[in-house]
Amino acid sequence: MSTEFTTRITEAVVASLDGTADPRLRELLAALTRHLHAFVRETEPTTAEWERAIAFLTATGQACTDTRQEFVLLSDVLGVSMLVETINSDDRTGATESDDRTGATESTVLGPFHMTESPVRELGADIDLVGGGEPCVISGRVLSADGTPLPGALLDVWQASAEGYYDVQQPDVQPAGNGRGLFTADDEGRFWFRTCVPSPYPIPTDGPVGDLLRATARHPYRPAHIHFIVSAEGHTPVTTHIFVAGSEHLDSDAVFAVKESLVQDFTETDDPSLARRFGIPNPFRHARFDLVLNTSDAPFARAPEGA
Amino acid sequence: MSTEFTTRITEAVVASLDGTADPRLRELLAALTRHLHAFVRETEPTTAEWERAIAFLTATGQACTDTRQEFVLLSDVLGVSMLVETINSDDRTGATESDDRTGATESTVLGPFHMTESPVRELGADIDLVGGGEPCVISGRVLSADGTPLPGALLDVWQASAEGYYDVQQPDVQPAGNGRGLFTADDEGRFWFRTCVPSPYPIPTDGPVGDLLRATARHPYRPAHIHFIVSAEGHTPVTTHIFVAGSEHLDSDAVFAVKESLVQDFTETDDPSLARRFGIPNPFRHARFDLVLNTSDAPFARAPEGA
Repeated sequence: MSTEFTTRITEAVVASLDGTADPRLRELLAALTRHLHAFVRETEPTTAEWERAIAFLTATGQACTDTRQEFVLLSDVLGVSMLVETINSDDRTGATESDDRTGATESTVLGPFHMTESPVRELGADIDLVGGGEPCVISGRVLSADGTPLPGALLDVWQASAEGYYDVQQPDVQPAGNGRGLFTADDEGRFWFRTCVPSPYPIPTDGPVGDLLRATARHPYRPAHIHFIVSAEGHTPVTTHIFVAGSEHLDSDAVFAVKESLVQDFTETDDPSLARRFGIPNPFRHARFDLVLNTSDAPFARAPEGA
Repeated sequence: MSTEFTTRITEAVVASLDGTADPRLRELLAALTRHLHAFVRETEPTTAEWERAIAFLTATGQACTDTRQEFVLLSDVLGVSMLVETINSDDRTGATESDDRTGATESTVLGPFHMTESPVRELGADIDLVGGGEPCVISGRVLSADGTPLPGALLDVWQASAEGYYDVQQPDVQPAGNGRGLFTADDEGRFWFRTCVPSPYPIPTDGPVGDLLRATARHPYRPAHIHFIVSAEGHTPVTTHIFVAGSEHLDSDAVFAVKESLVQDFTETDDPSLARRFGIPNPFRHARFDLVLNTSDAPFARAPEGA
């Protein structure tokens, strides 16, 4: 009897969703039910284990505030955020078949720190308002997939300080907008700005997700990176990072967001005339890369998410 | 590239759990990761849909208080609580192959209202301290699976009022312990007590789970039932309900907890001498059934969960 019941109940829950007015909601909830029940049938949690799971989810919800999203963090450390981001970038760009070197720039997670409007800055500006880190220049071009430069492309950039904190995490230490900038590419699609080389940093570990990382003997670090959302008229925006080649934790990002094509050299550069052109002390670190967008028929919108 | 990535990331998350000290936690988290990623790959949620899911889970956690457990409610309406309960009762009793009529009493969900200690009462006592409902007698025997009566078996009983509320939901209206009793079976394993016929009632609908039920056009009602936890030395305790035959919503319980074998007639009875014996006005309703436990080698413990 009971063996049958464990299958019958799945059918009963799915059938109970038949009256759902929104067909997509019905599809999502039916699939959730089937996968969740399959998980339970496979693992056969004890009542005590199930109660522990309920307590964990409850604590995760209760750790959320206006400036902290512990469920996003949970989704991040289970690789789900990255999976959703990647699936959506495929859907948007049709890039599934493309090659790392010739295709559009790959996407990665938005992360929880794109919570403020980035200040508009001139090309060449320094987004490091604090100093103390290793000075560097980021430069390159925004291109269409066929190689055509995209003048007027928008680059929304944000990064942690040299100490590994975003401005919103240290409102008493960093000025608002530190590490952030909204740039417009020039007439040839070029962009360049100054900053400091970012550092690896830990995701917050003082909540339930931190408990989970400790229980699984996982470190909480993300390799050094700079966030970008790049958009241009007639093209699909991309939400991504550039990772610093050689950074610690590149092979064990706590949120599984590293894609090889996104790792860039921040080259030690000793070139006084180039340093003068960028208005930076010589020698300096220099990361040069292009950001490539696929064309799109969708109406132009700067930031597809989190804006 | 990206198609591969959506598979590789699952392997990467599972591999990141390799250092987990507790092998059972590793097994549970690895299975959770695989099933959750399979759900995402199958349904391909948009970023907006994923954000809506995050917001729903956050609100569910934040709706929890000392006297309300919205995540248990979510687990209930998705049939997961019932599935976990059933799987555990199989594991505990080996009842998988047994027949509804000859096997041990089937289990069903504990529910969220077993939060207070039931008051010890004498056999024959009335657990309805408020009145106003239809008077009834509950009687029967606690038996071992081979038919042997189990003298001294404990029956922890709780039910909603005739208006459909538990005492803990109406502390200003119902005296504490209304609808609850802890009974000890007599020397022949018999039990009997008075109460009112319970009513169907809605689960709480003023939180995120209520929103979910409305979005799926599901009603929030549970068919009329009385909760039991039955235990006896040398036997596996059972957490179950008795459902009132003919109750509304028996075929659409909001938490999927109905099993046919648990539905009992509450027979209209016109028998002045029997009424006198039970100390109840004639005519009355009478539910008679036996509660059957499987033998167990585990040490005796009254209430296996929620106590």
